[in-house]
Amino acid sequence: MAVYTDIGIDDLGKMLSLYDVGTPRSFKGIAEGVENSNFLLQTDRGIYILTLYEKRVSAGDLPFFLGLLEHLAKRGISCPLPLRAQSGAQFATLRGRPATLLTFLDGLSLGEPRAGHCSAAGAALAALHDAGADFASKRANALSLAGWRPLAQATARRADEVEDGLSELITTNLAALEIAWPCELPSGIIHADLFPDNVLFLQDKVSGLIDFYFACDDFYAYDLAVMLNAWCFDSAGRFVRANAQSLISAYRKRRPLSSRELAALPTLARGAALRFLLTRLQDWLDHDSTVLVRPKDPREFAARLRFFAAAPSPEELGA
Amino acid sequence: MAVYTDIGIDDLGKMLSLYDVGTPRSFKGIAEGVENSNFLLQTDRGIYILTLYEKRVSAGDLPFFLGLLEHLAKRGISCPLPLRAQSGAQFATLRGRPATLLTFLDGLSLGEPRAGHCSAAGAALAALHDAGADFASKRANALSLAGWRPLAQATARRADEVEDGLSELITTNLAALEIAWPCELPSGIIHADLFPDNVLFLQDKVSGLIDFYFACDDFYAYDLAVMLNAWCFDSAGRFVRANAQSLISAYRKRRPLSSRELAALPTLARGAALRFLLTRLQDWLDHDSTVLVRPKDPREFAARLRFFAAAPSPEELGA
Repeated sequence: MAVYTDIGIDDLGKMLSLYDVGTPRSFKGIAEGVENSNFLLQTDRGIYILTLYEKRVSAGDLPFFLGLLEHLAKRGISCPLPLRAQSGAQFATLRGRPATLLTFLDGLSLGEPRAGHCSAAGAALAALHDAGADFASKRANALSLAGWRPLAQATARRADEVEDGLSELITTNLAALEIAWPCELPSGIIHADLFPDNVLFLQDKVSGLIDFYFACDDFYAYDLAVMLNAWCFDSAGRFVRANAQSLISAYRKRRPLSSRELAALPTLARGAALRFLLTRLQDWLDHDSTVLVRPKDPREFAARLRFFAAAPSPEELGA
Repeated sequence: MAVYTDIGIDDLGKMLSLYDVGTPRSFKGIAEGVENSNFLLQTDRGIYILTLYEKRVSAGDLPFFLGLLEHLAKRGISCPLPLRAQSGAQFATLRGRPATLLTFLDGLSLGEPRAGHCSAAGAALAALHDAGADFASKRANALSLAGWRPLAQATARRADEVEDGLSELITTNLAALEIAWPCELPSGIIHADLFPDNVLFLQDKVSGLIDFYFACDDFYAYDLAVMLNAWCFDSAGRFVRANAQSLISAYRKRRPLSSRELAALPTLARGAALRFLLTRLQDWLDHDSTVLVRPKDPREFAARLRFFAAAPSPEELGA
């Protein structure tokens, strides 16, 4: 949850004077997104999200993120569409931060997804990969293999404060992944963070995908590996193969997986587990109690990393 | 801002099964209210607020608060109306906490109110006092004179950590107020916390009053004294007499003030300043960093207390 920066009615007025969205009827800070401050704005014309980009999203990356959303929306993906200011500008500045108005998407995030939801989300992921294929801009994945060692080093000294043996778990897996990580798999725009939080449902159908601020160019199959981590464990931490089967099979109906992609899936899933373990660990250790965000427990992903490190076959992972 | 308890889609489903409000279309935690967890719920029928009452609001007080809102709404006050469950129950239980669905009010809270806003808010306060006059239930003001000494004692040892001389300021003023506090002024239901946060405006007109969880029986003029504190200082901490004049004169048009009420106003305003100083000070000193609320700075009210303690006349206060 997050509102890092308070926006008063005067700030809002300044922002709205740049856009053609009507007269405000209500304006509430919302507990959504851990990287930005988000507000729900209702005007006489509709509902919008006002996003203020805080330090984690650099202004230099905004043309990529906002351009991508425009591109995807044009290709029929239900994602937030950033409005253009009347000047044509892609974003504004508010309280010294880049700020946008985006369309609001109906839908609810699931708590514990069932197989049917995984199927719908897998199909939505494949549609996203399709739609992004002809997007011209590129953005490297700062949180792929090359980004993990610095994170591991930054957290190594204190990792065992969080869980006994965590430092060792990270070191071993990082070394193994640096050897086993695939190169040259089919690549393009990926979401890179498609957790259940970021998929909206209406009556068991996907109504929208949100939070594209980790989107980048990387292996398509890595996005699926992220979802194996995020959608396919139950609340007791057990892998739910039925979810994974539904996810992968729905994905493959729209975008077939090559044998090399299938073979790489266990390694990619292991890498994704390490990626979320490392960033959560860093957030946990660096947690600034004056910032109103409760860090997520990294240990959940330590358990998933152990699961994927035990080298399950692609079939055992539902492929 | 506050979401203390996360509500998943399954929790929401359980809650909605008790009410007749349609099918959910979106559900977002909102940064509103420091006492409760609040969520904005959109269904195919409308927009609602789901409130979960956290520890500061006791279940025993809920029939008073919710009954009062029903009463006021019936009397034409634009306030959140708590929906009754299909069983007729006044509230439900969710995640072990009392929970309600309330109607959503359009409008925006002001940052720095101008005289015209104070006039509108003063008239709304008088209308509220009128509408509450025949409400049958009673609730003592736990945060009036008798409640201040325990708060002063609880914070005395550490008050000077926040500002040099704060402990002395509190002791002196408390002693003076214990002597000077009026008895037997016209009384009835008061809001007791009508800060600009709790008054919604649409195009310079009051569109709603919210957050009634300090409402109680006390002197009507004390509500005006709270507003002198909350609406009549600028961002530099200076008293804005034009705001106070507008506030009081609009109030008096609807509910005349007796000469005893007018004479008591400086003392009541001094008491209100002490009340908010004490509760903010306690929140500041007790602040639990795992709770995602940034405590408000108590020093603002130390300055207001000094202002009112200098014994301005009712005229100097805009009356």
